[in-house]
Amino acid sequence: MPILPVPIQEMIGALERLPGIGPKSASRLAFFLLRAPQDLVQQLTSALTNLKSATGTCQLCANITLADQELCEVCRDPQRADGTICVVEEPLDVLALERTGGFHGRYHVLQGVLSPIEGVGPDDLTIRGLMERVRAGEAKEVILATNPSMEGDATALYLRQQLLALGVRVTRLARGLPVGGDLEYADQHTLLRALAGRQEMT
Amino acid sequence: MPILPVPIQEMIGALERLPGIGPKSASRLAFFLLRAPQDLVQQLTSALTNLKSATGTCQLCANITLADQELCEVCRDPQRADGTICVVEEPLDVLALERTGGFHGRYHVLQGVLSPIEGVGPDDLTIRGLMERVRAGEAKEVILATNPSMEGDATALYLRQQLLALGVRVTRLARGLPVGGDLEYADQHTLLRALAGRQEMT
Repeated sequence: MPILPVPIQEMIGALERLPGIGPKSASRLAFFLLRAPQDLVQQLTSALTNLKSATGTCQLCANITLADQELCEVCRDPQRADGTICVVEEPLDVLALERTGGFHGRYHVLQGVLSPIEGVGPDDLTIRGLMERVRAGEAKEVILATNPSMEGDATALYLRQQLLALGVRVTRLARGLPVGGDLEYADQHTLLRALAGRQEMT
Repeated sequence: MPILPVPIQEMIGALERLPGIGPKSASRLAFFLLRAPQDLVQQLTSALTNLKSATGTCQLCANITLADQELCEVCRDPQRADGTICVVEEPLDVLALERTGGFHGRYHVLQGVLSPIEGVGPDDLTIRGLMERVRAGEAKEVILATNPSMEGDATALYLRQQLLALGVRVTRLARGLPVGGDLEYADQHTLLRALAGRQEMT
């Protein structure tokens, strides 16, 4: 079996390291790039080069921001409601919540979840910064919006303990059936949560 | 809604131009790359830079090859059986056929298919080169291995006409049920082909 030319093998190898891209997608992408217009390759290369150098972390909430700015867009915005901090795992979660248009408070990005298996403890996350913000009286309520997964739940539970000691209100995003979902296809845990969290129709 | 930092928007924009990568995958990949080890970003950048400059097209079969080599691995290999040329659409198809280990002849890569809608005519493909090879007596049989799609079939039909005039044997890959497939889930066209192409069990 003839071996692919090395430059293509290298491209495939690099693409395979990306999450969600298996060997087949990687080779399809590599061959696409081989025939793609030069400007696309250029665009990818320069975006990759800039990505890390031109971005930084918000000093307050640990969301991403531009490298030359200390605070992110949300922290800088005087229009946002103070008094509520929504705690999320990743910057992408901020984006997801912003898309809903239903939250107008501040954020705090943990930059991960507690995971003993992967050796991620409280000090590896931005929990200290969160506590400082709450201690400084920045929030009356902290919404724990970590993922509804085992690690997300464990992290929320850990934060709840710490936060309640500071006398702040601690809430967690509701669990239940997804909108537009089908009861028949809901897993039993979700259905159980939906039952337990059922609400009065008035 | 706060806007993402420009470098991330640019990364997402570039990734979205790749086939099979939608807005969601693009932003997930961009955020992954943001936190990825520097060596991965480096690997991707250098692979992208080399990809086009270090590869070329085989002067005989139009498969990909290294930039400094006139012929590809298959064309250079003296062990390959002469007399049979397998015509495929893309270099990836060569790879797929090589993986089977069932073909030992030569290839010819069309670099596309005839597609009047997209304005791809015979002169946009490497058909002229194929005819020259056949006319030079390079093949007794030409296997048309274009995709079993509408365009692939049309291209095969076109090539068949041209090739038969040259007095060469022209074959097409068999159509039927995929191995390990389920009759129940086969679409009617495939099933019809499988029926029509049924073979004697002896």
